[in-house]
Amino acid sequence: MIYLTRGYLFCASHRLHSGRLSEEENWRVYGKCNNPHGHGHNYRLEVTVAGEIDSSTGMVCNLSELDSFVEQNILDRFDHAHLNRDQELFTDTVPTSENVCRAIFGIVKGGFKRAKVQKVWLGETSLNSFEYLEEADR
Amino acid sequence: MIYLTRGYLFCASHRLHSGRLSEEENWRVYGKCNNPHGHGHNYRLEVTVAGEIDSSTGMVCNLSELDSFVEQNILDRFDHAHLNRDQELFTDTVPTSENVCRAIFGIVKGGFKRAKVQKVWLGETSLNSFEYLEEADR
Amino acid sequence: MIYLTRGYLFCASHRLHSGRLSEEENWRVYGKCNNPHGHGHNYRLEVTVAGEIDSSTGMVCNLSELDSFVEQNILDRFDHAHLNRDQELFTDTVPTSENVCRAIFGIVKGGFKRAKVQKVWLGETSLNSFEYLEEADR
Amino acid sequence: MIYLTRGYLFCASHRLHSGRLSEEENWRVYGKCNNPHGHGHNYRLEVTVAGEIDSSTGMVCNLSELDSFVEQNILDRFDHAHLNRDQELFTDTVPTSENVCRAIFGIVKGGFKRAKVQKVWLGETSLNSFEYLEEADR
Amino acid sequence: MIYLTRGYLFCASHRLHSGRLSEEENWRVYGKCNNPHGHGHNYRLEVTVAGEIDSSTGMVCNLSELDSFVEQNILDRFDHAHLNRDQELFTDTVPTSENVCRAIFGIVKGGFKRAKVQKVWLGETSLNSFEYLEEADR
Amino acid sequence: MIYLTRGYLFCASHRLHSGRLSEEENWRVYGKCNNPHGHGHNYRLEVTVAGEIDSSTGMVCNLSELDSFVEQNILDRFDHAHLNRDQELFTDTVPTSENVCRAIFGIVKGGFKRAKVQKVWLGETSLNSFEYLEEADR
Repeated sequence: MIYLTRGYLFCASHRLHSGRLSEEENWRVYGKCNNPHGHGHNYRLEVTVAGEIDSSTGMVCNLSELDSFVEQNILDRFDHAHLNRDQELFTDTVPTSENVCRAIFGIVKGGFKRAKVQKVWLGETSLNSFEYLEEADR
Repeated sequence: MIYLTRGYLFCASHRLHSGRLSEEENWRVYGKCNNPHGHGHNYRLEVTVAGEIDSSTGMVCNLSELDSFVEQNILDRFDHAHLNRDQELFTDTVPTSENVCRAIFGIVKGGFKRAKVQKVWLGETSLNSFEYLEEADR
Repeated sequence: MIYLTRGYLFCASHRLHSGRLSEEENWRVYGKCNNPHGHGHNYRLEVTVAGEIDSSTGMVCNLSELDSFVEQNILDRFDHAHLNRDQELFTDTVPTSENVCRAIFGIVKGGFKRAKVQKVWLGETSLNSFEYLEEADR
Repeated sequence: MIYLTRGYLFCASHRLHSGRLSEEENWRVYGKCNNPHGHGHNYRLEVTVAGEIDSSTGMVCNLSELDSFVEQNILDRFDHAHLNRDQELFTDTVPTSENVCRAIFGIVKGGFKRAKVQKVWLGETSLNSFEYLEEADR
Repeated sequence: MIYLTRGYLFCASHRLHSGRLSEEENWRVYGKCNNPHGHGHNYRLEVTVAGEIDSSTGMVCNLSELDSFVEQNILDRFDHAHLNRDQELFTDTVPTSENVCRAIFGIVKGGFKRAKVQKVWLGETSLNSFEYLEEADR
Repeated sequence: MIYLTRGYLFCASHRLHSGRLSEEENWRVYGKCNNPHGHGHNYRLEVTVAGEIDSSTGMVCNLSELDSFVEQNILDRFDHAHLNRDQELFTDTVPTSENVCRAIFGIVKGGFKRAKVQKVWLGETSLNSFEYLEEADR
């Protein structure tokens, strides 16, 4: 079994604020990440696909196909965007990196069919990172 | 002559939009960096001071003093902030990294007196960086 | 299932020398790592916790709580210390990075109760790293 | 269970071209990686071994033994080489990083007997990496 | 004075072999870099331009213009190429990174007119790098 | 003019303590860096030489000669050592990174004659670095 990991970068802003919490609780939970006008990050995204090596091409899947999918479905949507403004994903869901990571996993897993999408890793800063995979793939 | 460089990280958001340009020019010049709700970065800041080595301490200047100055005057102000909202610096000035770098140089040079501030370097992403110093210090 | 990884840095010194080995064997096994006065590293520590995303906060656990725990129980103890001098851990145990990694896992797993501690990764240099987890969590 | 990972670097060139595909298919599948005179990379290799910590040495295995094995069997063979010219491995097999990673896993797993070889990770650029392990070791 | 640095990556192969040296001298000078079929690197290129900040745009020069120039004149030419095959530059000149760095400086300095090109930095591996600038710009 | 920079790594321990200061002053100036048993770092060393490109070899100087010099005169002396124990350099001089950087510059400048040694850069952690060069070489 071979795993192929491809990295991408996108720059976005977000504000951590939960509609289910009071102003005071929001500040206690999120601290300065709750600042009203938001802040931003250079997110590093890594998508891992798993599979057998195709004996004629020597590849698990063609990276240019994965690149096209991620550019159209992830980077065009999130790069240089304010994540809280995403009408579909983050109107009722706080755009923590946990939730952004899970959302990206869902989009890639649901749409990219050329190889098995095993996990998505999202680095928020050089100190924090997040990894989402399904239980059966641990 | 010895140079000491200290690195710091802050996460902020900004929008590149100039009041001196039309909507169309703004888009042509800044592209997606002009998106209305802004985007963000993990900025890496490096401050370089220059001097002689003090013979009793073996140091150019005490890093804890530089750290205190930068934390109070730069990080408390810019970390987890939306740069365009800075009332003093960026009401009439576009918060490009060039201008942010020059502003930080001005603050540190003007306020930190324990050593000669030689230059300020600001990394916006792993691909773009900016460096500001005075002509006489080249 | 989502995994959250948080990185920390501490600088420490150690000497690799086993009381169960002769002087000659110590030198053969550890080489210059056996030098009598020790040497040191910038250790990079990463703690990974696993869990479900809390629907009201969007987080697996509050990073500020993990930070507090690690600062009080790991960094205050090991940062700028000589590991062989640790009275509790390394009087009879050689402070190899394997043993340091396992000891840190034990402390964090045993004491941090806000999320499941899945693994501890310890980087000794840019070339060597170590990862400790329990068999059931592979 | 502790995992020890050791990193190595080698610089090599390769050309992606499959004898089972037409000229046109080769270009479509591999793009500029199919350029006739080849191109190259700084490959980063990481070998992970797994095991129990030896109570007298505090180590999983002696890194100097792993280093010797990898230098003699991998680096002496692949560093500063043109991978397609490897008479044994890549006469009928395209030297994609998938295949290079699997070949290195086979060599290390088959020859290094001082510890259990759990996986081999191969970084081709800062954006692409590959990981090979056996199903039972997931 | 502000300096803006932009990074690029290209992957290429080369062979160090001088027509002015005997076979024996070539081997003594270049070692395994003289291997007949060549080897390769992930080259990291950084171009630094210097200037005043334009008061209406807040920029030294538009990065998208620098990117276009470098892509057309450097990356399209050197990425995924065998440098020794470059008909114009390296028929009589050994493609050491010193010479590649100087050649790139010449091309960018000679052709990009939107800002003053101050220096070109070329990283061959994580251990070796080269920097070319004109004496007057030190 | 071309500059060639070569990187090296060494791991060492030190204690910051000045014989010219009282116990209390030592603690105030150095903080936990004054801990009695010392601590350590993975030092990253970069040596920069400057010169013209030799037209027959395409090189400023042969890196293998610089490597030999640095290994024999710097790495064999400082790697896996306790810097305060250096009988020649640090009996009366505090081994701050400023002083270590200056000492290395003196050794390399004084002994390596194949090219002009322009500067020495020493990274203590990912946040602190030091650079020593002579005034005339700025």
